[in-house]
Order: sequence, then C-alpha cells, then structure tokens
Amino acid sequence: MSHVLTLNAGSSSLKFGLFATTETDPNEMCAGLVDRIGSDDGTIKLKDAEGAVLAQTGPQPIANHAEAVQSALTMIEASVPGAKVTAVGHRVVHGGVDFDAPMVVDDAVLAKLDRLSPFAPLHQPHNLAGIRAAQAAFVDAVQIACFDTAFHRNHPFVNDTFALPMRYYEKGVRRYGFHGLSYDYIAGHMADAFPDLHDGRVVVAHLGNGASMCGMRAGQSVCSTMGFSALDGLPMGTRSGQLDPGVLLYLMEQEQMSASEISDLLYKQSGLLGLSGLSNDMRRLEASGTDAAERAIAYFTFRIRHELGALAAVLGGLDAVVFTGGIGENSRRVRAEVCNGFGWMGLTFDDAANAEDATEISTAGSVVKALVIPTNEELVIARAAAAAAAA
Amino acid sequence: MSHVLTLNAGSSSLKFGLFATTETDPNEMCAGLVDRIGSDDGTIKLKDAEGAVLAQTGPQPIANHAEAVQSALTMIEASVPGAKVTAVGHRVVHGGVDFDAPMVVDDAVLAKLDRLSPFAPLHQPHNLAGIRAAQAAFVDAVQIACFDTAFHRNHPFVNDTFALPMRYYEKGVRRYGFHGLSYDYIAGHMADAFPDLHDGRVVVAHLGNGASMCGMRAGQSVCSTMGFSALDGLPMGTRSGQLDPGVLLYLMEQEQMSASEISDLLYKQSGLLGLSGLSNDMRRLEASGTDAAERAIAYFTFRIRHELGALAAVLGGLDAVVFTGGIGENSRRVRAEVCNGFGWMGLTFDDAANAEDATEISTAGSVVKALVIPTNEELVIARAAAAAAAA
Repeated sequence: MSHVLTLNAGSSSLKFGLFATTETDPNEMCAGLVDRIGSDDGTIKLKDAEGAVLAQTGPQPIANHAEAVQSALTMIEASVPGAKVTAVGHRVVHGGVDFDAPMVVDDAVLAKLDRLSPFAPLHQPHNLAGIRAAQAAFVDAVQIACFDTAFHRNHPFVNDTFALPMRYYEKGVRRYGFHGLSYDYIAGHMADAFPDLHDGRVVVAHLGNGASMCGMRAGQSVCSTMGFSALDGLPMGTRSGQLDPGVLLYLMEQEQMSASEISDLLYKQSGLLGLSGLSNDMRRLEASGTDAAERAIAYFTFRIRHELGALAAVLGGLDAVVFTGGIGENSRRVRAEVCNGFGWMGLTFDDAANAEDATEISTAGSVVKALVIPTNEELVIARAAAAAAAA
Repeated sequence: MSHVLTLNAGSSSLKFGLFATTETDPNEMCAGLVDRIGSDDGTIKLKDAEGAVLAQTGPQPIANHAEAVQSALTMIEASVPGAKVTAVGHRVVHGGVDFDAPMVVDDAVLAKLDRLSPFAPLHQPHNLAGIRAAQAAFVDAVQIACFDTAFHRNHPFVNDTFALPMRYYEKGVRRYGFHGLSYDYIAGHMADAFPDLHDGRVVVAHLGNGASMCGMRAGQSVCSTMGFSALDGLPMGTRSGQLDPGVLLYLMEQEQMSASEISDLLYKQSGLLGLSGLSNDMRRLEASGTDAAERAIAYFTFRIRHELGALAAVLGGLDAVVFTGGIGENSRRVRAEVCNGFGWMGLTFDDAANAEDATEISTAGSVVKALVIPTNEELVIARAAAAAAAA
C-alpha cells in the first residue's frame, strides 16, 4: 500500500494529512499541525482519523518550513510505521491565469508560481516554502500543486475583469476567486448525491474564518464573491470583505496610513472582530448576546443575502444554496437568517430540519433547495496526489 | 413674481438655472454653464427652457467661483430683466451623517460642511466655493444646501457600515450613497404617476457619466450601490466602480503608486474609458462596434444585473426597475441587456415599447415592471429653494 501526504503551509503553521491510496478514494489515516514555525516554542501534534491524539511534541524550536516538514515526517514515521509517501499534494493559494487544474511541480512550474507571489504576498511565499521543504524531504515523491484559484479559472470575461485600463487585466489584475478546493469538493459531492441540482444553478457559501461564495452552473464556477485577493466579498473573521475603494484613498490621504498598515487593518483587525470589538469567532459572538456581537452577526448574514441575490442574478435564477465551512456547517442561526430572506424567491426554510443539522434544510416543496454539505479540501488534494502518483 | 437660482459648482465649472416660483412647481426660465473656471479662456452660455441659446460670452479670464457666479448673474440680468432671486439652492455632494434634508446655510452649517471635505475632496470644496460666491453675490437671498447623500441617510445599520473596526464608523466612514437628488425626484414622480409601484419594492438605476442604483421601499432609500465615495458600485464613464481592496494594496505595494496616482487612475482613467480604451461616452461605444467597445458595454450591463440582483435581495423582491440618467433614458441597448436577464424573476421585456422609448418597457402582464423616467435634479433643488424662500 502506498500513501500520499497533503500539506497546507501558512506563514507560521503547517497542516498535514496522510492518506492511504485505495482503488476508490484516498483514505485518511492521520492528520496533524506544526504550529509557531519560526519560533522557539513550536509545537507538533498528530491525530488519527477519528481525532484521537497519536503524538505531540514541543514547545521546541522550529526554525523554518523545512524543519517543520521534517518534524511532521518524523512523527508520521513513528506513528505509522512503513508509510511510503509516493506523492505530496500542496495547497497553493494562487495558480494565476494559466493553471485551471492541479499541476505536477517542476522547476518551470515553481518559477511561474514564484512570479505570482505579488498577487498573494501573505500566502503564496509560504505555500512555496512548503513545496521546497517537501522536495528536500521526499526526493522520490511526486509533488503536486492544487490551487485555490483553479476551479474558477473559466469565468466569462465580464466576471474576470475590473473596470480598469486593460493593461491591468493583461498583467493579471483579475477576479480569480479562491476556496476553489472546497467548491470542487462540493461540486463533486453534488454530482453524486444531488445530480439534478448539480446540473442546475447552485450557489455555495463557504463560510469559515475565510468566507466566500461561488455561483455554479452544471458544477462549473461562473462567479465568486472573492476577486483579485482573498479580501473581497463577504466579511470574514478578521477581514473586511467588500470595501469602497474610496475608503482606501481616505485612509491613505487623510489618515496617512501606509500600505502595510492598511493591509494589517483590512486583513487582521476588520470583519467580525472589527465590528464586534470582541472576537473573530462566530461561536463566541452567538454566545455573547451583546449589541456589539449582534451587529457583527447581522452584518455578516446581511452581506451573505446581498451576495446571494447578486450571484443568483448572474446565474439567471437559483435552484439551490449550499452551506459549508465551519460556520456554514455549524451555525443554525446564520443559515436561518440567510434562508429566511429568500422566501420571495421560492425558498421555504425548514426550521426543524435546520435544528437537527439535516443535510436538506428547505421543505420538500421548496422551489429553491437549501443544503448543508461538510467540505473536505484535504480529500481533493489527496485525490490529485493519488492520481499523480498513479500516472 | 420672485425667482430662485440653482447652482451646481464643480472644480472648473458652474451649472446654474433660474426658476420662477409658482403656486405649484418652480418653472424653469433659463439655465446655463460657466466653464473652465480658473483659466484665461472661460466661457459662459445661457439657454432658455427649450434649449435655445439666449446669450454667450468668452473665451475670457474667469479667475474663481466668485467671478463665475458674478458672470452668471450679469448674463441672467441682461436676458431676464427684473429677475429677483430670493433663494439660491446649491447642490452639495456631501451632507455627512447629520443632514437628511436640505438645510438653510448659516455659518454653523457651512463649518460642518467644510469638515466633510476630507470625505469628498474632489467635489465638496468646489460646492462650498459656490455657496460662498453666492453669499457674496446675493446678500439678501436665502442660501440652501441640497445634498446628494440626504435621501439615503436612513439606511439600516447593516447597509450603512463596512466591516471595519467601529471607530471608523464613528468617525464617518459609512455607506452614504449619492445621486440622492435624482432618486428623490424619481420617488416623487412615482408617488404621482405609479402610486402602487411607489409603495412597493423599486430599484432605480441612475445611469449617467456617474452611475449608481438605489433600492427603495415605499419611496424610501434602503440601499445604494454607491458607498463612502462616488467611486463604488457600478462602473462609470471614467470611474472603476466596485474594486477589490486587494487591488489598491497591490497598486501601493507592487506598483509603488501614490494616493494621488491611484485616485487619478480610479476616477479618471477607468470605467468605460479604461475597458474600451476608446471613450467614456456610451453613445460612442455603441456606435463603435469594436471588440474593445463591446467588452466595456458588456461589463457595464453585467454589473448592473449583478447589483440589481443584490438590491432585490436586500428589498426582499422586486416590483419595478426604473431607468434614468443620460444612459438610462437614452440607451435602448443597455435597458434591454439589463431587463432580458431578469425573466427568471418575472420581468417580461417589451422590445417594441423599448424601441419607442416608452415610459413602460415591460409587457402589460409582466410581474416586475420596467420603466424609463427622465430625472430632474435641478427641479428638486429649485423646489427646496422655493420652499425656503416662502418659509
């Protein structure tokens, strides 16, 4: 039996998962997290597929991503003796204009991905550091990059561009869209479980600490609320979402803020945290009951309804809305506040089903269906890695 | 008979109109334009209510707004002997948080409006220069400020805020919305001419060289595509409209652009002009037939459909869409491309009526109505001035 490893490298963390390849779908054996990379008090934790802790170490110095990958590998080898990794699948935020599917990484691909770092300076360099570390640690394994942008790459021009001079479009200032691995998983699941809806007009709301929505026709992405960066569209845990460009000009001209100060404000101090002054965590906000928490939740669900209307218009109507991601899968309140705003469109919400976290949370007679489908981005990466190993 | 004067002062131009006050509506007698203020080749032109030229002078030096107002006054006095101006109504772009109706201008009001200049640096200082010039020229007349923001001032919190830390909301970083004088006119006209629709859910698309949309319930603004500045929402003649905030960070960090360079790009080089590389004028683009012109028109109508869906969701459905402004009143193609995307919502477009520029361009049986209503922002200002003069 051979194995594939999935890696998701952030600025100071590395998520990893080990999957056994099977004749059908890869089978998760264990998953872990290396945290606080670049510090003296890094930690490593490994859990089995049911979430039971298999091993943990630290705090200990973990200098860089190369050490993080080695630490993960050492822990896996101790806990899963004989694991043979034939392919490593990497989550990479940006595939640019060219990549609309997972790519086996060679020097030319890596050079292309390096050139995309200016488009995602907070994520891309760390993703690529993860690839380089894995190349060194698994010299015989295939490395494959799976892009958050790839699923969206065939948007029509009007939903790929901004109204800037065309030279910006040519140099890559486009509406890429992100969370594509999650949307890819949902589209695949719907093709199996809800084939009629899959073939229609579906909006998927991926609501986690990052959040976006994707409009699909016949399982293909037509539009997304995220655009050039992971900042646009819905408000998120700490990110602003949609913002008048005039606000940035105001911050520059009137408040004399630098690019890094504005970036820090919009990526780390805004969203649910900024509006509530309390937390980026929907669970804490729902439990709080304060006015500040309520206004953050109200804004979040309002913007989801706003964008759902926009995406439905782009799709020319709506057959189903799907909730996924941490908030989408777990917040009954958010699902209810979104769906109850669409009775006019033929969505009849089923409160009882929602209270039971059922898969289908619209009534049997509802013209527009509402579904809850847990996402699985790691599985999408593992599938691509297994396919590359078998090729 | 007494008269009111309307003034709309831009950076280098001054539009003015003279209205006779009547027992019902003010009656336009003449209107004019002082152009190229601040140069040696300024011009002044005055037309009667039918558009026939009454007088024109220039090129001549016009140093500032005070001289522009004096020049306009001199021309009016020569063409309309005995005109007695008892009130001057000013278009002012920004009324901030406090003003939700026209305000008689005194020193305290003027000081408040001065403090709003950082929110609209390209427009507010010129509007206020117009007020000061009129105060000097018409010492006995009432000066009244009519705000583009006032009509929108009672938006619910979720549609007034961004997801930034609340201190920005408190200091005035809000979704003000603009074109309020136009929306005010349309709401008033609908109350008379289409009372049932007026009482329902209406989206008005004000499509001119500046463009925005407003969602109304019972004639009250609930939401608008323009937010903090006149840059957000729909693409315009030379303005970008909606833009991922990450694009501005990219322009700052990767292209090293200054605030004034970005402002110039987004206000003056983008929109229809930027996408087409050809013109900011919809008539020229429609006549062009080139791929570049077609893609600009396609993006424009796509974004209108996108926003119409979003606003309908906010309103909880849609009873009518109203087209106004230069493009809305004149472009059959734009109206058709927008409306034909909403058959799924019950809008049945009437091509024949559209080709005749009829007021009602949906079929008699259409569930959602589509209307064309010419706007008249000057009349809204003149009404406010006449009311102030009579008070």
